[in-house]
Amino acid sequence: MKKAVVKESKKEEKKDMGLGISVKKSQDLPTWYEQVCLKAEIADFGPVKGTMVIRPNGYAIWQAIQDYFNKNIVKPTGVRNAYFPLFIPESFFKKEAKHAKGFKAEVAWIDPEVSGEGERIAIRPTSETIMYDSYSKWIRSYKDLPLKINQWCNVVRWETQATKLFLRSREFLWQEGHCVYETEKECNDDAVNYIKLYAKLCEELLALPVIAGAKTEKEKFAGAKTSYTIEAFMPDGKALQSGTSHNLGQGFAESFGLKYIGKDEKEHLPWQNSWGISTRLIGATIMTHSDDKGLVLPPKVAENKIVIVPILIGSDNSPLKKAEELKKVLEEFNPILDNREGYSAGYKFSEWEMKGIPLRIEIGPRDIKENKLIVVRRDNGKKESLSINKELSNNINKILESMHKEMYSHAKNFLNTSIVEAENMKDLIKSIEDKKMVLVSFCGEESCEDNIKEKTQGASSRCIPLELKNKKLGKCIYCDKQAKYKLYFARSY
Amino acid sequence: MKKAVVKESKKEEKKDMGLGISVKKSQDLPTWYEQVCLKAEIADFGPVKGTMVIRPNGYAIWQAIQDYFNKNIVKPTGVRNAYFPLFIPESFFKKEAKHAKGFKAEVAWIDPEVSGEGERIAIRPTSETIMYDSYSKWIRSYKDLPLKINQWCNVVRWETQATKLFLRSREFLWQEGHCVYETEKECNDDAVNYIKLYAKLCEELLALPVIAGAKTEKEKFAGAKTSYTIEAFMPDGKALQSGTSHNLGQGFAESFGLKYIGKDEKEHLPWQNSWGISTRLIGATIMTHSDDKGLVLPPKVAENKIVIVPILIGSDNSPLKKAEELKKVLEEFNPILDNREGYSAGYKFSEWEMKGIPLRIEIGPRDIKENKLIVVRRDNGKKESLSINKELSNNINKILESMHKEMYSHAKNFLNTSIVEAENMKDLIKSIEDKKMVLVSFCGEESCEDNIKEKTQGASSRCIPLELKNKKLGKCIYCDKQAKYKLYFARSY
Repeated sequence: MKKAVVKESKKEEKKDMGLGISVKKSQDLPTWYEQVCLKAEIADFGPVKGTMVIRPNGYAIWQAIQDYFNKNIVKPTGVRNAYFPLFIPESFFKKEAKHAKGFKAEVAWIDPEVSGEGERIAIRPTSETIMYDSYSKWIRSYKDLPLKINQWCNVVRWETQATKLFLRSREFLWQEGHCVYETEKECNDDAVNYIKLYAKLCEELLALPVIAGAKTEKEKFAGAKTSYTIEAFMPDGKALQSGTSHNLGQGFAESFGLKYIGKDEKEHLPWQNSWGISTRLIGATIMTHSDDKGLVLPPKVAENKIVIVPILIGSDNSPLKKAEELKKVLEEFNPILDNREGYSAGYKFSEWEMKGIPLRIEIGPRDIKENKLIVVRRDNGKKESLSINKELSNNINKILESMHKEMYSHAKNFLNTSIVEAENMKDLIKSIEDKKMVLVSFCGEESCEDNIKEKTQGASSRCIPLELKNKKLGKCIYCDKQAKYKLYFARSY
Repeated sequence: MKKAVVKESKKEEKKDMGLGISVKKSQDLPTWYEQVCLKAEIADFGPVKGTMVIRPNGYAIWQAIQDYFNKNIVKPTGVRNAYFPLFIPESFFKKEAKHAKGFKAEVAWIDPEVSGEGERIAIRPTSETIMYDSYSKWIRSYKDLPLKINQWCNVVRWETQATKLFLRSREFLWQEGHCVYETEKECNDDAVNYIKLYAKLCEELLALPVIAGAKTEKEKFAGAKTSYTIEAFMPDGKALQSGTSHNLGQGFAESFGLKYIGKDEKEHLPWQNSWGISTRLIGATIMTHSDDKGLVLPPKVAENKIVIVPILIGSDNSPLKKAEELKKVLEEFNPILDNREGYSAGYKFSEWEMKGIPLRIEIGPRDIKENKLIVVRRDNGKKESLSINKELSNNINKILESMHKEMYSHAKNFLNTSIVEAENMKDLIKSIEDKKMVLVSFCGEESCEDNIKEKTQGASSRCIPLELKNKKLGKCIYCDKQAKYKLYFARSY
């Protein structure tokens, strides 16, 4: 059994892996993806099955997400960060029946022999219950509302399915926002607003197009009234749920005794929402943008936006000196200067391409004479010659901006061409086989969803889109009854 | 048994607690401290015994520490942040015998029935073992060194002692830096450097004076060659270990198979250090500076540096308008405008004093006529009249700077007057009874430390100071043999 825990022969693995990736993205996406994560030193496997190490190159992406989030979402919406315990008494889970049921299979518990407590203690899979227990002590009056708290933390879900770096692991990092309101309107409006802010984060920071929508009754969060989601679409034709926001209604408030005295001096139940994004977004970003040479990072999350490689010919050391000068001039881009001896320029190019540095600057003796340098974009390999003058930083910023926009457009085009509409089951089955995200008219019945899943060999409902061009509702694609809404189906992670 | 887990009657507790603190700091420090933490809404108790909630007012202090740390310590010393798993296989602990022994009693394990793994899985009490397992895969050559990684995370130590908010809890937040070097000199120099950087953080950010030094063999970290510490000294005459740094020697490298090929093309064992500070620093800061009115925060960690309270007399609303103007002008200080109706100015003053806002601005009709405002310092209550002109922000910044310096001086004076030297056991016992930090000459024998602890009813060795004025070594205070170093003894948390 020991082998289940400690993965062996990692060293052998490393020795056997060359610099390059052994398969093409188009041929074998899972293997390609894993190799990009490992070889770009983004992540590694942890010793306990299903756990992962986020290496500095990967954690830098998470820090960029945190910075963006704290600045553009936490602060402007009046949320404050806090931290609640990792350990949750079992009785808390039992208070909200649907919530308890939804997480039952995934909860890891502390060894009761060690804990010495009379009750089982869970390691948090999510923090609704423990946060709302505190909220019930803190909230007294309408003056205490809205209460808006977010926490950055690790959560544990003891997955029995096969795990994948970032996309599904037994421990991951996330933020979870938990707000309390006087009215359902505020509560639901904010839940929708957070899902839109998530979509904006994906677009502006990660160059990642997503579809924002509501989950069906079948797919909603355990204990929610309505769940909202952003769905990204991966190159293998699978949707990836990339962030969720839940209007929790008043169920948790009732279970945990949250009450407030209103302006009318009477006692009321408040309304609650919760919303989260996780390190899964790192996986979505890598899988969407990277290529057969390795990692491609949207420039805004790249810790080092530039690598400077001096091209040395003979004994002429001037490119090295110029490169050192440039490193200082371009400090705002946190450039790496690759002045290692004993490595060819070509080897260096490959290494930094693998690691996804957005721009490579090459500077050789001829460039120095012309007071120029060469900039090479990681995403498309385009070369540009730039003059070394006052406008240099400005021009580099423009290139990075174009790069972000074009990476987004590229991904958005893929998403657009992946979306199709189906009018009948035959078309739906065919489109799912063709790895599409398929929009259909739907009646809202859980049994129809189950049947579609079976007929399509695994496609699940992804979301009822918030925004739609074609709003014309026909009959339900499965049962032919009047449809209630348009719904996306796709295979998914 | 259930009561051991879920603390009951919290609501009653809150209702019964008035705005003020019911005991004086000088009378009953533990009760006073707990009330400050609770009433300033810094922290609350978690439902599982020994756990705590860090509320937004408290977490803001932690974020200020993180920001300072990432900017002034992580980046300039070439460290990179990363994240390693919460779960550690038991076999890892067994690899380094002393380390395993040191943490044996405190480790919480996952329920083996749930985990389904053949081996016991620990919840990290510290991450040496799991990080060095990864390091052994990543390090190949001297070119990979030094390797410098830090992580921000939660750690769990299943304390059986009584717990205290921030100072001792079963889960806490910290950073742990883990570096690998070619030579012992680099390794130890850096370990000393990190402890000095911690001391600087305490002084510059938290206005907290500390003594930096080395731990004795008896008190050093489980598995370390040498441990360094910063020791703060609390108002009740107890030392508080506030940060540590360890020269781990080559023991972990040997146990975990860390090796590198040197420039000489031969295989070598590297040297390692690890270093950490935790949310305990929040407790040290609160206990040191706060007073009978509630929280006093060093201005640099205060999220809101100013509260503006308009003084309304009759129907004259001009102070409210002026206060709104000032809120915009003073935006850099993230001011709170307390424009609540139905509360007296006196009530508001008390509330913000409890919450530790560094400066209160009062603005009334007479001030407006004179184009002035009143600033009141939280630490000493001093009032100052400032003109509302271009120099306002500048003048407020000067007040905040003075406040920081004077808070530091005040705490430093207390530390200086608490330090005494003892030449014999009688003096040592008396000084410990008098709640002093006592410097003695010491032989280095563990048995002498044990005996001193017994005779003084609990004083432990705190550190061998890095810097000393009086370096004259006499005989060991206990055994009368030749002393090896000067050593501090004190009661401690």
